[in-house]
This record gives sequence, C-alpha cells and structure tokens, in this order.
Amino acid sequence: MNAPSKRQLNIGAFLMRHGHHVAAWRHPDTDLEGNVFQVFKRQVLAAEKACLDAVFFADSVALTNGVPALEPLTLLSALAAVTEHIGLIGTATTTYNEPYHVARKFASLDAISQGRAGWNLVTSDNAIEAQNFGREQHVGHAERYARAREFYDVVTGLWNGWDDDAAVNDKAHGQLYRPGSVRRLDHHGEHFSVAGPLNVARSAQGHPVVVQAGSSEAGRTLAAATADVVFTAHPALPSAQAFYRDIKQRVAAIGRDPDALKIMPGLFAVVGQSEAEAQDKFAVLQELVQPEVGLALLGRMIGNFDLSGHDIDGPLPELPLTNDGQRSRQQLLTNLAQGENLTIRQLYQRIAGGRGHFTVIGTKQTVADQMQQWFEEEAADGFNFMAPQLPGGLDDFLQGVVPELQRRGLFRTAYAGSTLRGHLGLPKPGRAHA
Amino acid sequence: MNAPSKRQLNIGAFLMRHGHHVAAWRHPDTDLEGNVFQVFKRQVLAAEKACLDAVFFADSVALTNGVPALEPLTLLSALAAVTEHIGLIGTATTTYNEPYHVARKFASLDAISQGRAGWNLVTSDNAIEAQNFGREQHVGHAERYARAREFYDVVTGLWNGWDDDAAVNDKAHGQLYRPGSVRRLDHHGEHFSVAGPLNVARSAQGHPVVVQAGSSEAGRTLAAATADVVFTAHPALPSAQAFYRDIKQRVAAIGRDPDALKIMPGLFAVVGQSEAEAQDKFAVLQELVQPEVGLALLGRMIGNFDLSGHDIDGPLPELPLTNDGQRSRQQLLTNLAQGENLTIRQLYQRIAGGRGHFTVIGTKQTVADQMQQWFEEEAADGFNFMAPQLPGGLDDFLQGVVPELQRRGLFRTAYAGSTLRGHLGLPKPGRAHA
Ligand SMILES: Cc1cc2nc3c(=O)[nH]c(=O)nc-3n(C[C@H](O)[C@H](O)[C@H](O)COP(=O)(O)O)c2cc1C
Ligand SMILES: Cc1cc2nc3c(=O)[nH]c(=O)nc-3n(C[C@H](O)[C@H](O)[C@H](O)COP(=O)(O)O)c2cc1C
Repeated sequence: MNAPSKRQLNIGAFLMRHGHHVAAWRHPDTDLEGNVFQVFKRQVLAAEKACLDAVFFADSVALTNGVPALEPLTLLSALAAVTEHIGLIGTATTTYNEPYHVARKFASLDAISQGRAGWNLVTSDNAIEAQNFGREQHVGHAERYARAREFYDVVTGLWNGWDDDAAVNDKAHGQLYRPGSVRRLDHHGEHFSVAGPLNVARSAQGHPVVVQAGSSEAGRTLAAATADVVFTAHPALPSAQAFYRDIKQRVAAIGRDPDALKIMPGLFAVVGQSEAEAQDKFAVLQELVQPEVGLALLGRMIGNFDLSGHDIDGPLPELPLTNDGQRSRQQLLTNLAQGENLTIRQLYQRIAGGRGHFTVIGTKQTVADQMQQWFEEEAADGFNFMAPQLPGGLDDFLQGVVPELQRRGLFRTAYAGSTLRGHLGLPKPGRAHA
Repeated sequence: MNAPSKRQLNIGAFLMRHGHHVAAWRHPDTDLEGNVFQVFKRQVLAAEKACLDAVFFADSVALTNGVPALEPLTLLSALAAVTEHIGLIGTATTTYNEPYHVARKFASLDAISQGRAGWNLVTSDNAIEAQNFGREQHVGHAERYARAREFYDVVTGLWNGWDDDAAVNDKAHGQLYRPGSVRRLDHHGEHFSVAGPLNVARSAQGHPVVVQAGSSEAGRTLAAATADVVFTAHPALPSAQAFYRDIKQRVAAIGRDPDALKIMPGLFAVVGQSEAEAQDKFAVLQELVQPEVGLALLGRMIGNFDLSGHDIDGPLPELPLTNDGQRSRQQLLTNLAQGENLTIRQLYQRIAGGRGHFTVIGTKQTVADQMQQWFEEEAADGFNFMAPQLPGGLDDFLQGVVPELQRRGLFRTAYAGSTLRGHLGLPKPGRAHA
C-alpha cells in the first residue's frame, strides 16, 4: 500500500467516576468531594490537550455497584460546552429506551458540539435494569439483539431523514428549509412504529458515530452491519487478533469497507517511571480491594451471579451460560480461571483493574511498545484507555505514553479537523433516501 | 403581614429558537446561521446578568411546526456548564417517557448545575407525538393526567430515595455511603413498576423544581398537588386573577402552603422607547406572518385542527372540545374569537405573537406598570417572559423593563443564593422515607 501518511492510532479515554480499578475511589488521588462535573471537566480538558479522539462514558439505567453515575448525555452536553475538538461518546441501551428519544438526544449533542457526538449502542449487560422499566426479568439475549438491530435502523433512519443542506434560511421568501429536504420515516417494524421526521437537523459530521460493544456471535453480526467503531475486551494478543480478523472479514463480506470500521480494545495501563514503580502503583490499588467488593464485581462480570456462598479460596464453580449479562465477557473470564487454575479470590484480583481488558503495567516505553505491537500486528486500530484511578492514572498516560507514541509517529500532535468522524478517519455518512 | 422585606417578583425567560412571534425567524434580528448552542448561550448569559430566576424551554417529541428544536436536557446541560446562577427549566412529557429516565436526566442536570434544575411536567399537547412512539392515536386527556400523576410519584420517589447526607466518603474504612441512606422504591402501580434506587444522588437543592403547565380541571388538580411553579396562559387580568385564586385555594385545601407554589403566567412584551416605537416594532413582525403559517399555528393551538378548508376572512367554525391538545388554550381562544367577533385571520394575527398569553406593547414603564398590577392584584407571583424575537426582543426587556422593576424594588439586583429553589423562595424538599 502506498499510504500518503503513516497509519495512525485512534485513542479514546474511557472515563468512570473514580477510575476503572474497583478500589480507585479509596486511592488518595481520587476527589470524592468536588462537583462531579468539575472533576470530569478537568480530565476531559487534559485529554483534549493530548489530542485524544474522544472521551467515552459507559452507562447503566440502574444503580449497579453502589456508585451513582450521571446520565451520559447530560454530562457530555455539559462537556461539549467547554471543549472544542474532542469527541464525546456516550452509551444508551436499546433495550430500555425508545429510538425517537435516543436519536434526538444524540442529534442534539451532535448539534451542540458541532459534530463530535458518538453513540455507544448497547443491549444492557445489567439484568436489574429490567425492574426499573416495568419488567420482572431481563429481556433475553437474542431478543435484545433483534430489538437492537431494528432500533439502529430507526435511529439512523431518523437521522437520515434530513438532508445535509436542508436549511436555506431565506427570510425574504419565507422559506426556512428546502422543500423535500426533511422526510418522514414511517417505519413499521416488529418492535417499533415511528413516523418521524426527527425534530433535529443534521450536524457538521452528518450524524453521530455509532459505537458497538457486544462481542458474542450476535454482537459481532450487529457490529459488522452497523458500527463505525467496536469497543472490545481482550486480555491478550492472540484473541484480539482473532477478533480483529473476524470482524474485518464480516465487514468485507457484506460489502462494507473494512477500514471504515475501527476496532478499539480497552487498555488498562498503570504507568511508572520504572517497571518497579508501576508495579508498586498497582499494588497500592490491589491492596485496597475489599473481598465483598471484589466478589460482587466478579459476580456481575460473569453474568450477574451471586458468588457469596462459595469458598473464596476455592475454584470458580461451573456456571450456566448467562442470558442476562455479557456472554463474551463470561466466556473470557471462565477461560482465564480454568487456563491458569485461579481461585475465586485470584480471579477477582486479576480483574479488579482491567476487568478482563488488555492490561499493561510498566514504563511509558513498555506501554507504547505493547500498543504498537497490537496496532501493527492487526489486533487493534486504536485503544480505549481505562485509567486505574483518576486523575493520576490518566495524567500518567497522557503525559507519558501519548508523547511517546507521538515521538514514534503513531499519534497526532494536533487535531486536523473538528468532528469525531474526522478524527477517526471515517467518511461522512450519506443520507438514506438519496 | 410583617414581611422582613418586600415581596419580590420571580421572572423566567421562556426561550424559543428565533423567538415567540410566529414570524420571528424572518426578522432581521434573528441569527439563522450561527450554531444554535452559541446563540442560546449569549441569550442565557444576558438573562443571568439581569438576575433572572431561570430560563425555560418548552418541548415536543415531534417536528411540530417545521422548526427543529434541540432536546431540552442536552441543551440545558450545555448551558449549565457556562453559567453559575440562573435556573434551568426544561420540559419532558409524562405521556411518551419512562419515569426512571426522566428522574435521572433531571437529577443529572441538577448535579451538573449544582441545584439549578427544573422539570416542566407536561402531558403532551401535540397529538402527532403518539406516532413517534408506536401509537396511532394520542393518549386520551384523562388517561394522560392519570399517568402523569403516577409518573410524578415515581420520579419524586426516586429522587427521595437518597438522603441529602448519604455520602460519607470514608476511604479508610471503605465506606462511600452511609448504610440505609439509599433506598429502593419498589413502586408497583397502574402504569409503572419501578424498583429503584436511582443511580444519581441528591443535589444542592434536594431535587429539581417541578413546574406544571396544564390549566384544565385535571391540570389544576395535578398542579395543586404536585407543582412548585405553575406556568399558565391568560390574556387579561380577570381570568388570571380567577386562576390564581383557584389554584391557591386548591393548594391550601390539601394542606400545602400556598406561598410554596408560585404562579407565573406567560408575558409577551414588545418594548419601545415610546408607545409608538413599540407598536412599530410589533407591526414589523405582524407583517411578516404568512397566511398558511398563521393558519397552521391557530389550528395547532385550537386542538390540532386543520383550518385550511375554511374562509380565512370568515368566523371560526364551531369545534368539538379537543382530546388531543390543550383544552384550556382551546377554550381561551374560542372565547376570544366569540367575544370580539374575530375572523380566522384576525384571530391568528392576534395570537401570532403571544399565542393567547398576556401581551403588552409599550414602553418599559408601561410593561412594568402592567406587571406590577398583576403582581399586586393577585394575578401572578411572577412571569415567564416570552421575547417576540431573539435576541433583540429579549435585550429590550432585560435592559429596559428589568432595571425599571429593580428601581421599583420589585426585583433583585443580585442573586442571593445559587439554587433555583433559593431564587424562587421555595423550601428544600424533605425526603419521603424520613
Ligand atoms: C468494552 C465494552 C463496554 C460495554 N459498555 C456497556 C455499557 O456501558 N452498558 C451496558 O449496558 N453494556 C455495555 N457493554 C455490554 C454490551 O453492549 C452487550 O450488551 C454485552 O456485551 C452483551 O453482549 P455480548 O454477549 O454480545 O457481549 C459493554 C461491552 C463491552 C465489551
Ligand atoms: C404555558 C404553557 C406551556 C406549555 N408547554 C408545553 C410544552 O412545552 N410541551 C407540551 O407538550 N405541552 C406543553 N403545555 C401543555 C400542557 O402541559 C398540557 O399538556 C396541556 O395544556 C393540556 O392540558 P390542559 O388541557 O390541562 O391545559 C404547555 C401549557 C402551557 C399553558
């Protein structure tokens, strides 16, 4: 290939209140008293200074682990007002939402941010969400994905109901929009009937970027058909490569350009001045893990099972394949426990930080080396960085690893454009009814 | 009464893209090309400089008049990031929403803004919203209000599931929240089953202010039982006084403090240096009204009727009482047409600006006189100002009328607190399970 410039990494910052390590909130770094928005604002401004592609917020529509979380769209809109370049990706489940609301909220964020919005389309990995929306039981896995697919069609159909050049703003002749440039959708499907049109116009990037984070068979099929970006969890290079190959092949098989779908695994990294310092930093966090918190985390990750009755220093029990949670994550953790003969305690300690994601503990060179290897050996187009604790763990990455990647010519030193699609190198989407 | 200080007006700015006059967008003042958020930001900063209590955004979950509108919560969150004092009130319908989502979005805005959020609880006055949510027909008027009442109970129940002092933030002992300070709701009602708890904590003002804007019998009953603030439309003093008396009596009758519910009618005002200049300013807008736009506006206001088959210079036809729209507004407009013998054209011209709200066209003294009269003669506790066009119509009010009211000692010259409840003089709500 005769690329005009070297292929570049895409990097997002996956932010969570306190950080990703389950004991992060007990770390001296963590600001528990400050206003949540102000705390995130400082982090996002730091990420923007480092030219990251985006910040990313997960979500649950339930109190899942005792830690409250602002609704991502309100939070991201507030962040949009104080930033200029960085992409703003938020999660909204297709299982307990209506597509008109989701289409509209993300289109509003896209308008406010002038083309920096992204929608992480999830199907809800927390079974208890069901009970906040009138159901006893979680919607089944297959049904969730069937609904998700139709939900996607409605949301993008609403976004594409407006032409890019709809506005004529002709005061003299009393014409605001070109006739025919705003169209009804009139969708009538198995799960939804939605007339449209949406009451928000298109943005500078056409419409929001679509991110997908499921990795089961159904999740991969959906991602290949719909996603601009795939977030995924892989503990090691081979599984990441296999996943990467599989998704890119699926994308090509249905006639999409494989380069127009970016695969960004999660990366949990603890960065130190030396390997030993990095290990020490990690140990500080590991020692703060309370057994009941570790058990609860593992239970959630493995499909919402209550592990409290089991011997914490014994092996992981045989568990049925979950309907409720992340099937792909359950598989990953079961394989890990069996492969390395881990006790329950060892397993929750293993995931207390990275939760099954690619984990690197070392110097900025070590982390950059690993990222470069995954990037060059077709395991990743970029990464979704998960800071151990905030703000310290993020600062270590932004001030250490990012400059190292920039020095190697693998990451931008300035934003070339101002939309999220631009940062990711994705084409502006065409409209459906062209 | 021996009040320690003179009773003060509460003033909100009811903002709409372009302004409230139906032809505002054709006015030379209106910025059609700028980024919508930046346009609103300038207006809200001006309103904050004038110490207004709040800005207010209406909403529809459908494209109702060909003009798109950002989703209010995303817009208000962005505005929260660039303001410090002004209240932020947004509309969300109870008819096509789930209470968990609504509770959470407003709680997030309340957290981001540190206690400045308000929820305008409406039941949807646009029948076409139904078709964006899987229904052929709009939900009936009585059913909408029954659902709204239960919706309110769930939303406030979720907000009250957190204690004000829930956070202990004890890193050393590994305790984030005081045990028992966060409670499930376990609501099981006719319309909703919601387990809770909410995943957002309480804010500096306890929970968001609740605003209600229906004025029918059912609307008044709901307002008396639930609202902190009532927005209402009255063209003249006597009907506003009757409404004011009626609501305050209903509030007292159920044992609430009548002073803890503020009645704020809409006020459409065109302000000039002289009476003649004000009339000229209004005429500029009136001349820009296209007949088809005027007809469509009137049709919507009168209950979603298509008036295009009727003689524009003939009388308003007899119309059945609407199920779909605002019953109170339909009554008001029918009375107006009959009382003054107006043709269809005259009627739409009459509502092209104020849409049936209190309308004053004159100097800053005239407008202040009228406001003072309504305030002192028990027709209003304050007003929701509707600018004819933006930004000019708002600036005229903020720079002319507000200083005039301040000079008369009727309006604050500096914010005394930083929460919306504080500005409105409302008590911080107790928690339900105390
Ligand atoms: C990296 C990653 C992030 C995710 N973020 C969320 C989230 O924020 N909220 C959620 O409900 N599910 C989230 N999920 C879950 C997926 O969207 C999906 O519902 C779940 O993985 C089940 O699908 P699967 O069996 O295809 O993996 C995430 C999954 C992955 C891999
Ligand atoms: C001042 C005012 C503002 C309103 N704003 C909205 C709104 O933004 N969105 C909406 O759907 N309904 C709005 N409504 C409609 C009411 O919430 C209510 O649904 C409608 O008036 C029907 O109830 P009623 O018959 O009790 O008046 C508003 C009503 C008034 C009087």
